[in-house]
Amino acid sequence: MIAVEIISIGDELLIGQTINSNAAWMGERLLEIGIHLNWVTTVGDDRDRILQALRIAESRADVILVTGGLGPTHDDITKHVLCEHYGAKLVFNQQIYDQVFERFQKRGITMAKVNADQAMVPDIAHIMPNKLGTAPGMMFRKGPKCCYVMPGVPFEMKAMMIDQVLPELKSASGSSTILVHHFMTTGVAESTLFEMLDNLPAIQQSVDVAFLPSLFGVKLRLMAKAESPAAAEKRLAEGVTRVREKVGKFIYADEDRSLEAIVAELLTHRQETVAVAESCTGGMVANMLTNIPGSSHFFNRGIVCYSNQSKIELLNVPESMILQHGAVSSAVALAMAKGMRQMAQTDYGLALTGIAGPDGGTAEKPVGLVFIACADHQGAVYERHQFANDRLGNKQRAAQAALNLLRKKILEIDHE
Amino acid sequence: MIAVEIISIGDELLIGQTINSNAAWMGERLLEIGIHLNWVTTVGDDRDRILQALRIAESRADVILVTGGLGPTHDDITKHVLCEHYGAKLVFNQQIYDQVFERFQKRGITMAKVNADQAMVPDIAHIMPNKLGTAPGMMFRKGPKCCYVMPGVPFEMKAMMIDQVLPELKSASGSSTILVHHFMTTGVAESTLFEMLDNLPAIQQSVDVAFLPSLFGVKLRLMAKAESPAAAEKRLAEGVTRVREKVGKFIYADEDRSLEAIVAELLTHRQETVAVAESCTGGMVANMLTNIPGSSHFFNRGIVCYSNQSKIELLNVPESMILQHGAVSSAVALAMAKGMRQMAQTDYGLALTGIAGPDGGTAEKPVGLVFIACADHQGAVYERHQFANDRLGNKQRAAQAALNLLRKKILEIDHE
Repeated sequence: MIAVEIISIGDELLIGQTINSNAAWMGERLLEIGIHLNWVTTVGDDRDRILQALRIAESRADVILVTGGLGPTHDDITKHVLCEHYGAKLVFNQQIYDQVFERFQKRGITMAKVNADQAMVPDIAHIMPNKLGTAPGMMFRKGPKCCYVMPGVPFEMKAMMIDQVLPELKSASGSSTILVHHFMTTGVAESTLFEMLDNLPAIQQSVDVAFLPSLFGVKLRLMAKAESPAAAEKRLAEGVTRVREKVGKFIYADEDRSLEAIVAELLTHRQETVAVAESCTGGMVANMLTNIPGSSHFFNRGIVCYSNQSKIELLNVPESMILQHGAVSSAVALAMAKGMRQMAQTDYGLALTGIAGPDGGTAEKPVGLVFIACADHQGAVYERHQFANDRLGNKQRAAQAALNLLRKKILEIDHE
Repeated sequence: MIAVEIISIGDELLIGQTINSNAAWMGERLLEIGIHLNWVTTVGDDRDRILQALRIAESRADVILVTGGLGPTHDDITKHVLCEHYGAKLVFNQQIYDQVFERFQKRGITMAKVNADQAMVPDIAHIMPNKLGTAPGMMFRKGPKCCYVMPGVPFEMKAMMIDQVLPELKSASGSSTILVHHFMTTGVAESTLFEMLDNLPAIQQSVDVAFLPSLFGVKLRLMAKAESPAAAEKRLAEGVTRVREKVGKFIYADEDRSLEAIVAELLTHRQETVAVAESCTGGMVANMLTNIPGSSHFFNRGIVCYSNQSKIELLNVPESMILQHGAVSSAVALAMAKGMRQMAQTDYGLALTGIAGPDGGTAEKPVGLVFIACADHQGAVYERHQFANDRLGNKQRAAQAALNLLRKKILEIDHE
């Protein structure tokens, strides 16, 4: 297995102006060809630090991928520092000059003088053409090790990686195959999943298992490595079977997809419709469902009934019920779901009522208490959840729980 | 100036599963207290590499900020590796145990056994409470140097940085003063702002100006550096005055705040209320407004009227008007806003109708066309926007434009 690392260069990455999405993209592409990225080092446009980063990377990696700092302005020093590190000198390259000149001519723009500097390239480097910009890529060799240098502009870097760097790395990285499978779970804590996978070491003989939690649930990533594609497939299949046996009831998708995308697919496939009545989530569930292209096929309408009056007027929740049980109660959640379904004439009515916080909680009904309910032609079910103390987190957790209740209702999974 | 660097720990960061947005956020916050971040090192959940990263960082930094790998599962090894590096041993901490236990009890969930491990903390570390999760933060000292260790979950890390780490670093970061002022603008392109600030070099003599664009608008960051607070304040005041003179009409806030927070403050202060009728944004505007704590004081209700039928039934939009002008039209937007206001008996009615895409566009009404309208006791106004071709971007741009129209209506800023 060849050891690969990334050096991302640019002041903008260190002051929060730009998020280093290049490194994430490169890591994912490397994984797909069986290379596990070891390190990403982010450093500013600073000679001494770039030199130090190169020395450290060279001491432990076979291949270094450098991005950024190849632009034409004064703060772009990457090319000069690499020449210093590799003992190269800059020479004029007529071909690059012509290419850059032609780019500007085509766009009807006079070429600024600084752009001519792009044609000055290190004498000992292999030059990689840049189809989409003016800064050429470079590849330096030092013994068995090599260093690819690419622009930081994402689409220029990506094209160079896909066309030139990845094919070379793939052929150099040997024969082993890595395969990945994702399980998406929700409504279960990371620690509970961990305990349910009680014989993890046995599972790990087939696949590496990673737990990736967020407010929306825990994503499980299974990775199988083997010398041949067939062996990797066999290992992955073993791991997938074992994990599914243990935690299958919490899995809502067999690939890296959102719960709203799964619910949308189910409804669209069955030609069924839903309407959503939200109190504490304030429109978040409707917003999530309508993020899916084509949602007008299954999403009929939503009501954000923040005031009690709106629950009474729009959903026919009896005022006496709100007075007796409170707006945050199972009775009101059920009445909202039924009222929503009836009013909108949809297959499903989904409803949420709760206390998002930070204020509005009582000893009996604390912040984070949420009732969700789902109605269909057979009746309605509800769940009671006690979430945490942060408003936005509570909204997201409640929205996700509601979508999961809808999913279970659609699939007629037994209500627990 | 103290030298600070970040070590981001997590396999998910190296395989493209998670983009390292934590480091960008931290870099920006550090800059605001006058600290220029030097390095970010990203490394997997791997003992040897984490140890190496710590040794390298320690050789060049005064302060190391570590995030990630503090979860309760087997792949979270950060705490153990730090103990090894600093020669600490784990001891049971009753207070942390009680806090974690209470978190689970409050939510009515049985605490899994692995969570008890969160109460095992390094004996020599200063423990930083985690308000929003189970993994406590830690601070190790070694001579004059120190290392803060925080969870990788963004909102947990951010709370810990704001409450505990940044105040300590600020007081340690020495004598030169950096002052920052943010202007929030919306409804104007970055390049237009740049041209309006026609004499930027003159302004830059007082302050550095950065343009930070997003789908919600362009944030302008003004930074003044000086040896004394008084001199920095003078410079900042000069820069603020000059920038405001040039682009004041696009500024909705004088600090880094969201437009919904500004609108919420205006409505709350004036004891006025709003109701929102959304078609293309599908609940996003309601969701944004109800993200603000206390929104029940000014947000009465929202309607997500995705189907034509729901526009007719819930907002009294005449069917003939939809047939004549189409659902995406200024007439329907105005009728929705008026209908919403009348139905909810609020001070303002806000409405949006448009084509979010990717499908549903025509030559006459292309994807990205959005009409927004706002009604008050005097009548209603509308705006026509032509956004781009991506669904989620269009929803966000439209929601932001609607909130800005509401802001202008509240402040009686002339409608353009």
